[in-house]
Amino acid sequence: MIVMLPSSISQLPTPCLLIEQATLQRNIERLSSHIGALGCTIRPHVKTHKSVDITKEIVNGGHTKGITVSTLKEAQHFFSAGYTDILYAVGLVPNKFEQVKYLISQGCDIKVILDSVEAARLLQDFTQLNQTVFKVMIELDVDHHRAGVDPHGDTLLEIATILSDAQFCELHGVMTHAGGSYECFDHESQLALARQERDFSVAAAKRIREKGMPCPNVSIGSTPTAFAIDDLTGITEVRAGVYVLFDLVMAGLGVCDIDDIAVSVQGSIIGFQHDKHIALTDAGWMAMSRDRGTAGHKIDQGYGVVCDAKGAAYSHLIMQSANQEHGIIGVRDNNPENEQQLSPDILFSIGDLIRVLPNHACSTAAQYGEFYLVDGDRVIANLPSISGW
Amino acid sequence: MIVMLPSSISQLPTPCLLIEQATLQRNIERLSSHIGALGCTIRPHVKTHKSVDITKEIVNGGHTKGITVSTLKEAQHFFSAGYTDILYAVGLVPNKFEQVKYLISQGCDIKVILDSVEAARLLQDFTQLNQTVFKVMIELDVDHHRAGVDPHGDTLLEIATILSDAQFCELHGVMTHAGGSYECFDHESQLALARQERDFSVAAAKRIREKGMPCPNVSIGSTPTAFAIDDLTGITEVRAGVYVLFDLVMAGLGVCDIDDIAVSVQGSIIGFQHDKHIALTDAGWMAMSRDRGTAGHKIDQGYGVVCDAKGAAYSHLIMQSANQEHGIIGVRDNNPENEQQLSPDILFSIGDLIRVLPNHACSTAAQYGEFYLVDGDRVIANLPSISGW
Repeated sequence: MIVMLPSSISQLPTPCLLIEQATLQRNIERLSSHIGALGCTIRPHVKTHKSVDITKEIVNGGHTKGITVSTLKEAQHFFSAGYTDILYAVGLVPNKFEQVKYLISQGCDIKVILDSVEAARLLQDFTQLNQTVFKVMIELDVDHHRAGVDPHGDTLLEIATILSDAQFCELHGVMTHAGGSYECFDHESQLALARQERDFSVAAAKRIREKGMPCPNVSIGSTPTAFAIDDLTGITEVRAGVYVLFDLVMAGLGVCDIDDIAVSVQGSIIGFQHDKHIALTDAGWMAMSRDRGTAGHKIDQGYGVVCDAKGAAYSHLIMQSANQEHGIIGVRDNNPENEQQLSPDILFSIGDLIRVLPNHACSTAAQYGEFYLVDGDRVIANLPSISGW
Repeated sequence: MIVMLPSSISQLPTPCLLIEQATLQRNIERLSSHIGALGCTIRPHVKTHKSVDITKEIVNGGHTKGITVSTLKEAQHFFSAGYTDILYAVGLVPNKFEQVKYLISQGCDIKVILDSVEAARLLQDFTQLNQTVFKVMIELDVDHHRAGVDPHGDTLLEIATILSDAQFCELHGVMTHAGGSYECFDHESQLALARQERDFSVAAAKRIREKGMPCPNVSIGSTPTAFAIDDLTGITEVRAGVYVLFDLVMAGLGVCDIDDIAVSVQGSIIGFQHDKHIALTDAGWMAMSRDRGTAGHKIDQGYGVVCDAKGAAYSHLIMQSANQEHGIIGVRDNNPENEQQLSPDILFSIGDLIRVLPNHACSTAAQYGEFYLVDGDRVIANLPSISGW
């Protein structure tokens, strides 16, 4: 079947994923101007959308250098699309060495990361055996969040020494991700963590250099800290991904407003249960993902905030639960305006279109093989994305 | 690149999804013999895996008739693969009418469902205008779970009358899904709900027939009630999906044992945080899904139960949290054997392979475009699956 692109969102199949072009561009411009003003560059993380078209928009927004990926499949895909400067930001292990070597052999300027002596030695052996130079960054733990070595500890220098001594490893620098910023619910704590992320990374680089070893790059980033940071002296690049789309988690942290969320899932109303005051849609967890990222927030948004067909949020409605291909739309708990507002089983009719703003843009976008770029009611383009490993 | 199928699971890329062939076949045989012994047939729900190859195995297991799908993309895909008798088990709405009409025009014997007078009238108008006969089942609510009309209420007969009178609608019967069985934590409550599912459905069919209208089919099903039911008199088919793979949710309900789970995600150990006694893997929530289906269970399994490379479960380890491409493996809370067992940062080395049993087979399988069918260490085949709408 040849699929024609419909001109109106009302003609799209449901569920489907919409991206508001103007909001996307505003979000891109916001970080670009902030990081640009600080004299630094963004290495956008494409894992959020895995879309070449969106990445082009980000690069067009200025102040970027290269991209960040979370899988080697993304690396391969974006390299095939013309991106050569790629940071693969997940600790590299032996069963991926061959794939990286292949990418390098094709001309891809890929950088890999690791955070253990063991991984460094394994990579040293492999690169020596294969006579292939790997560019390697050492991952730092700046907030006790997930991965990385202590910027102030001995392991950092031990790994740096192995890589620096290895004939076929190039010590490319240090990198970190202050993922702890997802627990920072106000600007002050985000700024404090952003400064810590910067300071610890700069300090780690200094320690390496003081030992006579190279550390040309200092890469930091997370969407909350990228917006919070006020001085990037000593930092060569900032990585962030979700800021281009934003989501309810970011809104819950105060990093954006609800109106800045560029991504939504369009669904159809398929039924009602009047005794429970709910409406059912064809956008279940397959369409939204199972992500409940706002569950620990002050305002738990369920599976998402419900909007009308034009994208205006209903203050009283959320997607309260989900089955695979069924979404349950109900009235928000403790909604002060309950009395004045219609419950969804009265408000909607069968076949009505709604939109749902997601908790987490990355997990929701990953449920789709393509997105629709829209301008209000008008469909501008469909943007393919990739998945898998 | 031409990708050769590796002979050993140790050569597979990570993360990847493994399906144990012997376990799969045992699971298929278990429900087949149970439903067969009750003189009924299974209409397998393919939404769990979306794989034609697995569906072939199910059909080869016997006692099946047609398939159930959760999206029209699945309907199209399985129809193209030779399956004509298809039940689309999500309430049909106008923006999907044309797609169903197209499938019918191609010779697909698709059945659709609805549960409102409004939807029935919309479909009546469409079929009349298009002179195309749609086979329609009325969805029943037998457990106050999600969708469907009251089997004892007036709406059932109102919808039946519209469909029965419509020149181009064929009233194909009634159907229900006792999804409430996912809240039944022992055999007694599962049996009670299974009998209620059967009794209410048979009663609804009887009410329609007593009004002189046809109701040839009575379709029920959910994995827990399908195994619990002891008499299927009056039922023409049982729908179930997850039983072929099973998962931790089903094990938590006592419907299967951990050893019956045919599906696991293979990941690599990529790093450690010794002070937190955790190991990191490359199987994050993208590999497992965000499904936390055991969160409300007596035993919360986190993001999954951790097994060694051969699939033997560690009693003390779970995947305790997840980022997009990082899984965090830690020691289970309140593990009585903590003292005698090694924490994962000691137990594992960089590059070690592990497997993680998922909470929910449907959501985990949906993260992959292909699965690896395995027999112990040996890779038998790769099975493509589909996604999207």
